[in-house]
Amino acid sequence: MNRHHQTFEIIKRNPRSPRRLAKIITSHGPVLTPIFMPPGTKASVKAIGPDDLEKIGAEIVLVNTFHLFLKPGLSLIKKAGGIHQFMGWPKPILSDSGGFQIWSLAQAKRGNKNLVKITEEKALFKSPLDGSYYGLSPEESVEFQFKIGSDIIMALDECLADKIDYQSARLSLERTQRWLVRSQNKFLELKRKNKDQSYQPLFFAILQGGRFKDLRKKGLEFIKKLGGIDGLALGGETIGYQMKTTLQLIKELRKDLPPDLPLYTMGLGASPKDILDITAGGIDMFDCVNPCRLARHGQLYQGKFVYKNKKITIQSETKDGLIHILNAKYKNDFNPVDRDCDCYTCQNFSRAYLRHLYQLKEPLYLRLASIHNLRYIFRLIHLIRETT
Amino acid sequence: MNRHHQTFEIIKRNPRSPRRLAKIITSHGPVLTPIFMPPGTKASVKAIGPDDLEKIGAEIVLVNTFHLFLKPGLSLIKKAGGIHQFMGWPKPILSDSGGFQIWSLAQAKRGNKNLVKITEEKALFKSPLDGSYYGLSPEESVEFQFKIGSDIIMALDECLADKIDYQSARLSLERTQRWLVRSQNKFLELKRKNKDQSYQPLFFAILQGGRFKDLRKKGLEFIKKLGGIDGLALGGETIGYQMKTTLQLIKELRKDLPPDLPLYTMGLGASPKDILDITAGGIDMFDCVNPCRLARHGQLYQGKFVYKNKKITIQSETKDGLIHILNAKYKNDFNPVDRDCDCYTCQNFSRAYLRHLYQLKEPLYLRLASIHNLRYIFRLIHLIRETT
Repeated sequence: MNRHHQTFEIIKRNPRSPRRLAKIITSHGPVLTPIFMPPGTKASVKAIGPDDLEKIGAEIVLVNTFHLFLKPGLSLIKKAGGIHQFMGWPKPILSDSGGFQIWSLAQAKRGNKNLVKITEEKALFKSPLDGSYYGLSPEESVEFQFKIGSDIIMALDECLADKIDYQSARLSLERTQRWLVRSQNKFLELKRKNKDQSYQPLFFAILQGGRFKDLRKKGLEFIKKLGGIDGLALGGETIGYQMKTTLQLIKELRKDLPPDLPLYTMGLGASPKDILDITAGGIDMFDCVNPCRLARHGQLYQGKFVYKNKKITIQSETKDGLIHILNAKYKNDFNPVDRDCDCYTCQNFSRAYLRHLYQLKEPLYLRLASIHNLRYIFRLIHLIRETT
Repeated sequence: MNRHHQTFEIIKRNPRSPRRLAKIITSHGPVLTPIFMPPGTKASVKAIGPDDLEKIGAEIVLVNTFHLFLKPGLSLIKKAGGIHQFMGWPKPILSDSGGFQIWSLAQAKRGNKNLVKITEEKALFKSPLDGSYYGLSPEESVEFQFKIGSDIIMALDECLADKIDYQSARLSLERTQRWLVRSQNKFLELKRKNKDQSYQPLFFAILQGGRFKDLRKKGLEFIKKLGGIDGLALGGETIGYQMKTTLQLIKELRKDLPPDLPLYTMGLGASPKDILDITAGGIDMFDCVNPCRLARHGQLYQGKFVYKNKKITIQSETKDGLIHILNAKYKNDFNPVDRDCDCYTCQNFSRAYLRHLYQLKEPLYLRLASIHNLRYIFRLIHLIRETT
């Protein structure tokens, strides 16, 4: 094994909070943190091209092992020359391992029949696409991620519901730990065999443990003892289920968290407020389908970022910080969605026009709305970085 | 009335055919012809932003009085500052008058109930959007087009089915002629009252007459005698219903067509072949939903343009000149849709990737496919212009 190279550099620490400005070094270039990672689940960020993503300020996108494993499959992506080539995105890519999607599929019972069975060896599941049965082991997940050329590879975990009982959470955490060791062994094996020196993927562990602090701490100790990881993710339904609990958990883990690794909260970043809170808690990376999903459903971020007394606040004209574009009051509103926003949508189109497109289900709406919501998030992130 | 200004300049005539290179002068800049006008029916070219349109080479887009009259309506577009401002498209816009859409709605009977009634005064129709009854007179159509700030205003016509009998076609043609006079009177009245010198819309007549040559010639004589028009459109289901008949009709009308006006075949341009044929027949302007519609349904233009012996031919790897992207043979095809194409899609994505997006109904597919099909048409048009 090569000597572990520096993949995370802290550039600046905020004197008033655990917030920090840092850089992750990947084979496809650096990523500044804090960073929001737009979800390109099925090898496409919904309604947004790579050209739009670059303009919005995206530095890394997330893809999903579970979805891509089923379709188009490893062989096709390999033949395409890897995931970057396949989807036309030349910058870094993080691949999720599939743990969350398998958990999510397990919640969706058809009748009394479970679509997912998890054994010690692997997760077994019925494909929502074609009804066939598939298996995904920690080794297979890591191999998939490695062979598609992902820049950041996540260990396969057993994702947990927030409401799970203590005993089940403890047993599951132990399985996640065994799966982490197997994931890492596979990663190290592939790294040894890898002949392409230009491809140096990073390997992240996922910490589970449900809502139980002592299990989270136990899991954290295990990961720290294991070593050899490039980043640590907090996973499970609990993370983001209730933001108050999530922030409390981050705070309590804080002093035990490895100080020299990027910290990633999985699935967080639904609202600008959440992003302010998690970055203030020292989180470096996050992803969420919400900015794009809200956009597609007619909900557009609005609100002025105000930096005052070393604090960022958001002053929106609406209670929830969202323009609900179908609302009749926007019918004759020729203002941009957000007056401060420099995105293509706000620079060229009015609320009235977006409402018109949304009402008539014009496909252009999806692109314009997604561009705005994503750019809004990136503008906030840039301000967070500047004021760290 | 102002002295009629020059709005059409012929730059070059092809020595071997009626084909020509020309320029239409509008209030929002010049348009070179031959030109394809992408349909932005409801104030948006489907799945394509104005930024994409500019890159594709679009010089003018078409909007629809019928659709925009119903939604969002005149008052909103006026408040937006006009149709260009509303849809964020700064270049020329041609507005269709509604004749074709009313005819099209009339074909779609619900039970035995006609949704459209045409009287001498106006067309009466039931809105497909909200079921309310609306009326559209020649004056109202022209006023709508003028007040939204369209650069090219079409007279309201009574559109005819190809199979119509001679007597009905003759009576209808006479109505279309009376409606043309009323459309023109309204146009001239609005022009006289117009105080904005920077806005000088053009006025086009639509020639009907069904499939009957003598009626078409009669209609043509009427229009020429009337005078004061900036362009002539060939309308009715017959135009494009069968390309052979259409081209024959154009040929037979040829010597009587006004030589100094732009000629527009409405709804033509479904295939590259059609565009080669109609431009060879001396047609300057055309619009068609097909390039975008085919794209959305997984059919992408492919074929090398070959200019040899002063003739353009297209050499496609498929019989119909289309890549049917769902076809299994493209699953592992990492070529661009068309190797010669300089569009964003062909420069960055493979057939395999487009197939993947199409299969999974990823919204990005619509944009990438539409960009390619439109750019393909514009590349052909540029070659036609260069070789005239």
